[in-house]
Amino acid sequence: MRRWNGWGDERTEVHLPDAGAAFLAARLGPGQPLADASLAEVLAQVPPSRLPEHPLITRDAETRVRHARGQSLPDWLAMRSGAFGVFPDAVGLPETPAQIRALLDWARQQDAVVIPYGGGTSVAGHINPAASPRPVLTLSLARMNQLLDLDEESRIATFGPGANGPQVEAQLRARGYTLGHFPQSWELSTLGGWVASRSSGQQSLRYGRIEQLFAGGTLETFAGSLQLPTFPASAAGPDLRELVLGSEGRFGVISEVRVRVSPLAEQERFYAVFLPDWPRALAGVRALAQARIPLSMLRLSNTIETETQLALAGHPRQIALLERYLALRGAGAGKCLLTFGVTGERRQNALSLRQTRRLLKRFGAVFTGTLLGRKWAEGRFRFPYLRHGLWSAGYAVDTLETATDWGNVDALAQAVEDSLRHGLADQGERVHVFTHLSHVYGQGSSLYTTYLFRPGPDYATALARWRVLKHAASQAIARHSGTISHQHGVGRDHAPYLEHEKGPLGLAALRSLARHFDPDQRLAPGVLLED
Amino acid sequence: MRRWNGWGDERTEVHLPDAGAAFLAARLGPGQPLADASLAEVLAQVPPSRLPEHPLITRDAETRVRHARGQSLPDWLAMRSGAFGVFPDAVGLPETPAQIRALLDWARQQDAVVIPYGGGTSVAGHINPAASPRPVLTLSLARMNQLLDLDEESRIATFGPGANGPQVEAQLRARGYTLGHFPQSWELSTLGGWVASRSSGQQSLRYGRIEQLFAGGTLETFAGSLQLPTFPASAAGPDLRELVLGSEGRFGVISEVRVRVSPLAEQERFYAVFLPDWPRALAGVRALAQARIPLSMLRLSNTIETETQLALAGHPRQIALLERYLALRGAGAGKCLLTFGVTGERRQNALSLRQTRRLLKRFGAVFTGTLLGRKWAEGRFRFPYLRHGLWSAGYAVDTLETATDWGNVDALAQAVEDSLRHGLADQGERVHVFTHLSHVYGQGSSLYTTYLFRPGPDYATALARWRVLKHAASQAIARHSGTISHQHGVGRDHAPYLEHEKGPLGLAALRSLARHFDPDQRLAPGVLLED
Repeated sequence: MRRWNGWGDERTEVHLPDAGAAFLAARLGPGQPLADASLAEVLAQVPPSRLPEHPLITRDAETRVRHARGQSLPDWLAMRSGAFGVFPDAVGLPETPAQIRALLDWARQQDAVVIPYGGGTSVAGHINPAASPRPVLTLSLARMNQLLDLDEESRIATFGPGANGPQVEAQLRARGYTLGHFPQSWELSTLGGWVASRSSGQQSLRYGRIEQLFAGGTLETFAGSLQLPTFPASAAGPDLRELVLGSEGRFGVISEVRVRVSPLAEQERFYAVFLPDWPRALAGVRALAQARIPLSMLRLSNTIETETQLALAGHPRQIALLERYLALRGAGAGKCLLTFGVTGERRQNALSLRQTRRLLKRFGAVFTGTLLGRKWAEGRFRFPYLRHGLWSAGYAVDTLETATDWGNVDALAQAVEDSLRHGLADQGERVHVFTHLSHVYGQGSSLYTTYLFRPGPDYATALARWRVLKHAASQAIARHSGTISHQHGVGRDHAPYLEHEKGPLGLAALRSLARHFDPDQRLAPGVLLED
Repeated sequence: MRRWNGWGDERTEVHLPDAGAAFLAARLGPGQPLADASLAEVLAQVPPSRLPEHPLITRDAETRVRHARGQSLPDWLAMRSGAFGVFPDAVGLPETPAQIRALLDWARQQDAVVIPYGGGTSVAGHINPAASPRPVLTLSLARMNQLLDLDEESRIATFGPGANGPQVEAQLRARGYTLGHFPQSWELSTLGGWVASRSSGQQSLRYGRIEQLFAGGTLETFAGSLQLPTFPASAAGPDLRELVLGSEGRFGVISEVRVRVSPLAEQERFYAVFLPDWPRALAGVRALAQARIPLSMLRLSNTIETETQLALAGHPRQIALLERYLALRGAGAGKCLLTFGVTGERRQNALSLRQTRRLLKRFGAVFTGTLLGRKWAEGRFRFPYLRHGLWSAGYAVDTLETATDWGNVDALAQAVEDSLRHGLADQGERVHVFTHLSHVYGQGSSLYTTYLFRPGPDYATALARWRVLKHAASQAIARHSGTISHQHGVGRDHAPYLEHEKGPLGLAALRSLARHFDPDQRLAPGVLLED
């Protein structure tokens, strides 16, 4: 069963190995475990629903608890402490676009706020109800998870918006296809959520971001249905798909999604390479990203992330052997781990691999074959489970991400890391910070930064520390020309920083669109746009 | 000097060869040349300007004539007959974004309409002033044509919006780079115009459409400046670039354009292949487009276009030899010409070529080497000049384009061709129609249809015939799920058909944006949106 207060299935547990615990204790001090609230304690807090009965909703308390929070660190602290604050008054469970429209009509009659809900994996506060005089109806799309049509000639699949990663891939694989969209949240997050929040998958280098995969579909709004027909390309005015992408529930509820799919690839391989230091690693990865070699993924860890990953892997003896070998070959203390993949036709993959090795040699790369690459692929969705292991050991962990042009990548990475590393200095606390490039483009790269810190003696301290760190990093991103999100979206947590990049006029344009589609401002208020 | 009443430089003349004239006479009847008006006759019609003097504008009559019309067939008929109808009252010639803002302020003071003007190559009525009680200021960006910055690390070039194709490429090539955007109008059309109308170049398979090349920039609107920062990717809400792309001057004037550029390729080759018939040609090209082989262009002519191209090439003896060879190899009367290109690194090009040949062999392809491919590359911008040769011979020519998913390509192509072919039947006139696929995608393809007909005894008949044909083809596109434009934009000519694909709610959203950025509806009225 899915955890009510954490990530994923209860049967999957990822513990922090002893070597990892020692590594963190040396950097942050001993862990500070905090006690968890029980589900019974939380259920006791759930107030009576302010909405009447309706055949398409449930007012059951546990369902309301399970749809009250996402997966951000503040959500985690709320769930662990039991201090949820606000719960939705009911959860709608439509099975068809017509039922979505019926629930929107009903919500208007009830003067309710509506929060569209996919997999509940938001890390930016997208699905949290705020205290409001209006009752809150959370609209779960979970029952709309079917592959409805597959046009093999045009390679377009039509899905319900609530299909999560495994549901999407299982239904496509049975027909010999893949969507190829694998965000780290893949096990739980949904197609509609990916579209609404402009998600990016680990192999977007081959398959494209969700912007490239989303071919059309339907948005149910309070002003009517917006049908987006599928065209391979069009010059017929502004592309309305691009208004739905990133709309985060503010304009409407996505009721059908058409995506571009690919036949399963003939071959897929992942490789690991070590670069001797960050400057050469960065230059090498930029050269690779700009060389148009058809790789399917690239991920470059900086020196501290490389060191941390090796420490947390939990096989100290094998790691020591590996490090001795790498040092002999020139990749010593400053080394950076680069993982890359090829996916596709065998001869093309062989050429891409040869070209990649040749190019990276110029930057001092030490090639280690496919073992570490395979490890990466096997563990690609496990990181969110590790939060449990870290939490039990007494450490809080959060991640944030941005993107910028190559000329600015290093400066932005430094600024974000510094803002976090020294963010709790006045409290005498250290923060362990590391970064990887997760998505590279010809023009620049995303930056994905992880930070660990001690929660302090109680939940209030933990939340206050997070607020300080999140604000410091968000300001660093805005000041150093990063985008406030490369793949997680805006939600509530990033909304205060959005004007910096959209400008007042751009933000006003988005507000005018929100009023156009949702005149009463009933949909996901406070998300994307603060007002 | 640039022609005032036709395409391109006066020194370039492309005549219709005798074999071509005979070919058309056999299909359409003898040509019907019409007499042209002289520039002096047109200048005599230009009324006094309704705008006062201003240091950044000119009210000179010839300049006003030269900025009154684009390159659609109705524009051509207006210019040739001298029946321009409406002229702009003045042409503004700003040299900086600040001067654009100054002219917008001044236009508001004068209660004038403003028409942004790039290269004047619109084939959809984008830049034509309509009769209006408000004076019309056409804003030419021609003086803002410089490369302002080149960030070689991030591969971003910043240009003034008025740089035309040769100006863009010459300034980039001097630094070892290319934009790689080559629409057929490249000699005259401009970067700002490409962005405003969602242009696509002949090698978009490699370099991307202008949507992929446009990284950011600035739009000057009546509500203020909209700055679009450059990010390699972002999940921070809807992408405002996508509102500027395709805005066709309705939201503002593009004052600066940042584009993603590429180093000049190591090698480029174009090849020609003949497929035995249309069904196999279509299936082969779809397989190629979906195989992810990194080609740089693909263009597939249908049987009639292949036949017409060979007839109009003007070397009957060599063509006969070629056709005999092709027939022996299995590509006889129904044959279709496929041109494709590889651009990039030598080893990759060699692999791509091998894979393309292997794939196409399954569809009965006859490979002819690089001669015809070179001919295509040499003549790639000459087609618009041929209109002069055809006109002198007494034939009118127009083109239109759409795009659709693969499952619908053949049906749409047939519907569009049939609507044109029989469009003048009740007048006893034949129409010669042919089509090629100019831009292919995994999901589908563009369709580019050319049609030739006799203008009739006078200009009024010619224009009436065009209206019948254009309406018939546009209705066929809308009814058969095509987009009303793949690369030319909406302008005035396609605006009546836009609601069919955007829907009433989508169109209303665009209207609300137009009011947001331009409260007095002063910019390019009637373009993109009819009201």
